[in-house]
Amino acid sequence: MVISLSYAVGIDLGGTKIEGVLADDKGKVYNRLRVLTEDKKGSKQIIDKIIKLVKDLSKGYKILGVGIGIPGNIDRRTNKVHNAPNNPSLDGVKLIEILKRRLKTPVFVENDANCLALSEAMFGAAKKYRNIVAVVIGTGLGGGIIIDGKLHQGVTPIAGEIGHMKIIMGGRKCSCGQAGCLEAYVSGTAIDKRYRELSKTKGHVTVTELSRRARKGDAAAKKILDETYEIIALGLSNIINVLDPEVFVIGGGVSNNDGIFREIPKRIAKYVLGYSDAKILKAKLGDSSGVLGAASLVFSNLSKK
Amino acid sequence: MVISLSYAVGIDLGGTKIEGVLADDKGKVYNRLRVLTEDKKGSKQIIDKIIKLVKDLSKGYKILGVGIGIPGNIDRRTNKVHNAPNNPSLDGVKLIEILKRRLKTPVFVENDANCLALSEAMFGAAKKYRNIVAVVIGTGLGGGIIIDGKLHQGVTPIAGEIGHMKIIMGGRKCSCGQAGCLEAYVSGTAIDKRYRELSKTKGHVTVTELSRRARKGDAAAKKILDETYEIIALGLSNIINVLDPEVFVIGGGVSNNDGIFREIPKRIAKYVLGYSDAKILKAKLGDSSGVLGAASLVFSNLSKK
Repeated sequence: MVISLSYAVGIDLGGTKIEGVLADDKGKVYNRLRVLTEDKKGSKQIIDKIIKLVKDLSKGYKILGVGIGIPGNIDRRTNKVHNAPNNPSLDGVKLIEILKRRLKTPVFVENDANCLALSEAMFGAAKKYRNIVAVVIGTGLGGGIIIDGKLHQGVTPIAGEIGHMKIIMGGRKCSCGQAGCLEAYVSGTAIDKRYRELSKTKGHVTVTELSRRARKGDAAAKKILDETYEIIALGLSNIINVLDPEVFVIGGGVSNNDGIFREIPKRIAKYVLGYSDAKILKAKLGDSSGVLGAASLVFSNLSKK
Repeated sequence: MVISLSYAVGIDLGGTKIEGVLADDKGKVYNRLRVLTEDKKGSKQIIDKIIKLVKDLSKGYKILGVGIGIPGNIDRRTNKVHNAPNNPSLDGVKLIEILKRRLKTPVFVENDANCLALSEAMFGAAKKYRNIVAVVIGTGLGGGIIIDGKLHQGVTPIAGEIGHMKIIMGGRKCSCGQAGCLEAYVSGTAIDKRYRELSKTKGHVTVTELSRRARKGDAAAKKILDETYEIIALGLSNIINVLDPEVFVIGGGVSNNDGIFREIPKRIAKYVLGYSDAKILKAKLGDSSGVLGAASLVFSNLSKK
């Protein structure tokens, strides 16, 4: 019998919903709750909702702390939330400080892709590895880096922002306001946009739908998919040429298209110097990666001390 | 009085010459010797020369081991030298194994840019920092990464090969055989080539000469320098978006042009997500960075155990 010693609350704070779990340090989930974010109603009610979630989830348990994943970063100079376009009301809010004071428990906040990297490293597809790059291809393209078993955080909060690596200088406009970013080509949003431009159709398509159309002979879908695989391969190769990790874990909606796992490994050799041994694995924790990653923040931060 | 406890021999194995020093773990150099590489005469005579250098340098001293910097890598699957275009005779040679057997002392071999990173971290410009990216812009463009005070080596030997990060997919042909690499735009060789193409002149120019011409009003020189600064800024920003280091240390011939240290910091903000706190410093150890970095290999590897 395994006796779990530690519990934490993990919160995934998204643009649409706030989801929370009570989990133990083996990744087992005991309680799960979900509420709407309603960012338009302001940050105060978001904070109140988080506090209520934490209290409801942890009733009857002694927790080590609370971890929160946000689609943004904490500016380390000011400890304020920034780069969180989906939760504009939180921009500039000292989230950690406020929650610590009101909850009287340790609180850790990290970028959501960093949380996915942590959860996949601790409980998911990359459990066997110590040098991991997680790539989350959804609406945007995020990343999280684990080096030597630890989340690599960098000096400012932007380490792991691989979606904003420029791969075509002066290329397509990105949602960050710059040009030529990886995200401007191969996020879910960008793939859809590139397909609509090429096919001159109007309805939005997911990558799964694009695959279906390609199999049915849609030339534009085939071309866009092929270019997408090529660009992802180039992006991952850039990371290999810099960091040379043991494994990539790919998550997010776009990773539901199995073509990625078939095509990318074949195409990487073309772009790396020498050879690559990096495995390319699909994220395993699915919808739980955010909340479990947030809970892992607590375990990984407190076990360090 | 500081008493030095440890000595090592550091060898910088270049395309033209093999240079060696006897140094202590404070970076003090006691002996220095230099011989020609003469790669065309084959690898056996190179190995014999290295052995003679080690013996001559360490006479009267007890050394911890020998460190060697090579303009290439050691393939970790086979322990053979590879990616060493300037020393073709060494390609496929089990350098570490042969030297260990003949010298009966620990031998460490690393890519020369990794050695520069180590020496600047231990004794040079980046002594105060623990998260460092060294960028060596000379004939080619190499890099070395120190994370949390340790050389980041990666799974295969290519970590730190930032020169082969693609910044313009499908762009200029690179010496590695691929296209669009950072090195294909801003190595000394590439800058010279881009200038000759634009100015339709024939003589080779260094970056220092290019700066001189730009100051004198040469429009082509101005344009090439301006683009060079812009591309280096973009390349470093890509690394910031991934690794977010505390400091870049720039070495190699191209770093003798001070414009780099004036222009790059200004241009980085345009390409990073959020903000960057990364300092951009000039490598300090100059010609000694290779040999001292090679010696540091011994100290850093043996002090780990």
